[in-house]
Amino acid sequence: MHTLWDRRFAQRTQRMTSSAIRELLKLTENPEIISFGGGMPAPDVFPIEKMLEACQKVLRDSGPQALQYSSTEGYLPLREQIARHTFRYGIPVNPENVLITSGSQQALDLLGKIFINPGDHILVESPTYMGALQAWTAYGAEYVSVPIDKSGMNTDDLEDALRAGPKFIYVLPNFQNPTGVTLSLKRREKLIELADQYGVPIIEDDPYGQLRYEGEHLPPVVVLDDRFRNHTGGCYHGNVIYLSTFSKILAPGIRLAWVIAPAEVIRKLVQAKQGADLHTATFNQVVAHEVSHGGFLDQHIKLIRKVYGERRDVMLAAMDRFFPPEVDWTHPEGGLFLWGTLPRHMNSADVLKGAVEKKVAFVPGESFHANGGGYNTMRLNFSNATPEKITEGIRRLGEVIYERLGMPARVG
Amino acid sequence: MHTLWDRRFAQRTQRMTSSAIRELLKLTENPEIISFGGGMPAPDVFPIEKMLEACQKVLRDSGPQALQYSSTEGYLPLREQIARHTFRYGIPVNPENVLITSGSQQALDLLGKIFINPGDHILVESPTYMGALQAWTAYGAEYVSVPIDKSGMNTDDLEDALRAGPKFIYVLPNFQNPTGVTLSLKRREKLIELADQYGVPIIEDDPYGQLRYEGEHLPPVVVLDDRFRNHTGGCYHGNVIYLSTFSKILAPGIRLAWVIAPAEVIRKLVQAKQGADLHTATFNQVVAHEVSHGGFLDQHIKLIRKVYGERRDVMLAAMDRFFPPEVDWTHPEGGLFLWGTLPRHMNSADVLKGAVEKKVAFVPGESFHANGGGYNTMRLNFSNATPEKITEGIRRLGEVIYERLGMPARVG
Repeated sequence: MHTLWDRRFAQRTQRMTSSAIRELLKLTENPEIISFGGGMPAPDVFPIEKMLEACQKVLRDSGPQALQYSSTEGYLPLREQIARHTFRYGIPVNPENVLITSGSQQALDLLGKIFINPGDHILVESPTYMGALQAWTAYGAEYVSVPIDKSGMNTDDLEDALRAGPKFIYVLPNFQNPTGVTLSLKRREKLIELADQYGVPIIEDDPYGQLRYEGEHLPPVVVLDDRFRNHTGGCYHGNVIYLSTFSKILAPGIRLAWVIAPAEVIRKLVQAKQGADLHTATFNQVVAHEVSHGGFLDQHIKLIRKVYGERRDVMLAAMDRFFPPEVDWTHPEGGLFLWGTLPRHMNSADVLKGAVEKKVAFVPGESFHANGGGYNTMRLNFSNATPEKITEGIRRLGEVIYERLGMPARVG
Repeated sequence: MHTLWDRRFAQRTQRMTSSAIRELLKLTENPEIISFGGGMPAPDVFPIEKMLEACQKVLRDSGPQALQYSSTEGYLPLREQIARHTFRYGIPVNPENVLITSGSQQALDLLGKIFINPGDHILVESPTYMGALQAWTAYGAEYVSVPIDKSGMNTDDLEDALRAGPKFIYVLPNFQNPTGVTLSLKRREKLIELADQYGVPIIEDDPYGQLRYEGEHLPPVVVLDDRFRNHTGGCYHGNVIYLSTFSKILAPGIRLAWVIAPAEVIRKLVQAKQGADLHTATFNQVVAHEVSHGGFLDQHIKLIRKVYGERRDVMLAAMDRFFPPEVDWTHPEGGLFLWGTLPRHMNSADVLKGAVEKKVAFVPGESFHANGGGYNTMRLNFSNATPEKITEGIRRLGEVIYERLGMPARVG
């Protein structure tokens, strides 16, 4: 059945594909599946009572304002709150440096819209967050990849990649999606030095920075960059654009995130956002402000850290117990994910088929690679399932891997 | 103060401009201004108690689901509800024909993303909704305009415009934004015939269709098109994409709208939306479903019609009383706007300057014209201000117009 629309799709749609992760979200709607697939927070740590109080207060005290259209930049008290929060890290940020977006995915899309000409190269980690690839590929981006090891992006390989003249560097320094690894302090400093030397700016994506379960907090790249250029006072005008989100510290279903950037970048993003969705839901912004002022989120994050830290430990212990020694995996100090590497000849998409038969899901690593590769890798989420399900899911996954290796599974 | 970002903006940003309307939204944050500017609903008709009940019920009964990530297509019960609602008009629509978007502005942006190649021509009414121009110009669209008169798009001029080979036709048939005029039944039929003859599909934008204050409801273009091609049974696969929204019948601050389209168009839109914002806020969708099922919205719309119909009458009466006979204006049968035409030598942007001095705002007509013109026109919103303020605002505006004409104002 054809319509007049069929042959009218724009050329850019040929570069659009459905993300494997988003398709997995559908699969995980089946409650029988133990899913290590999506990057979903644990619903048991959503602050439902606090959300309820906030909705009541907002609708009773300022319903007409909260339900009305509002400015594209975002709700001013929320932007002020985010600016103060960022200031605590030591960056002189004003509300003019803050844009509220409909999730970090929208921030990535709007950044692509204002910066990427078709054929521009973007420097990314390999592997990297597939949502960024999905957003930017639609604008015609090509990629230069720098491999990751257990200390994050390998800065020894960075200089070669910078010589390709990328438009910007995209980096997830904390508990990276998908690998869970953290960029070391030394490499953060090296990254800033080289970026400065080659005149290439940086987008720092930091959705999980506050979810650290062990080790010392490292300063964000945006902070180190500001120190590096000895910036004191005045409005932020550095070379790093910083992204973060309420999705992992409050709830993803309200779609609220923010961008910190120089004022002239914010102005362009605002123009792009006007055309994209006018503004992010006013109600959600006012409610998030109500929930998060007064220090509630600082307290709530402690609970999240405790729950997710335990789940990470349970997953690591189960992998030790049920996975063959031929499989390697990362030991993240925070975040939501760890990364498994199967023997070179194994294909994780094939393992997924076997896993789904046993009602377990994960994301094969291939789609996190901008320029191919990673066929034997897999991303495992440890925040969403309960500890019992994590152990059981890893046990079944171990069985599949042993089967594919032609070996009997360990019984634990 | 320059950063490395300054010279890195993409070429398409040269085509992005800040919309005059969005900038006006900032002005109207000053409570002293009587604003006929934005297309804002009256906050006094927001169903705050019903929203409060719905938030409580949703958080208590299904908090974990409502605060979690969800599918890009949208919350299935809401899509089913919209499909049933559309079915009542006589179009066989399934949930696979429905996509939930973050406001209609996002629907326009995603449609631009999947259909518009740089240089493509889009057939629009003159004047037309500036938000569509803003979204599509960023993708490189050019425009062919067909003038509007008191019966909507002048279909006598349509054939010439169709010969230019536009990618699609964009039409707002009911109480059009900005003019308030309605496309007559005869012209709807002519539009469908000609579109079919030239093989050009149609995007029908219908945010106000249910807000009629007098006269008979006319079938949407999508319905007439379906009848025209004698379609019976099966899934919708017509040549019209239909847009509508919760912004005007519930509240705009929750950013919820929908697209009805053939399934293969929905699939492409879903891919584009994945990259743009993953999905529309789950919480808002579940709450809107809770508010609107059981017939509440049908009742609520009666209240909105009563309030807005009265305000329209107040504005028309005030214009009769305070405006010089040299000014002409439309008499909308519904919607939120009417359209004023000043004498040819007058400039409405200049009138706006004088109006703002007297603390009254409206939108000069120029920015609603895809290919220039309309310098002596103005859009006036009658839904937002109270009747007293409408009368006072129109009185002041009349004074400014009389001043500019070099004549003493009428005292009423």
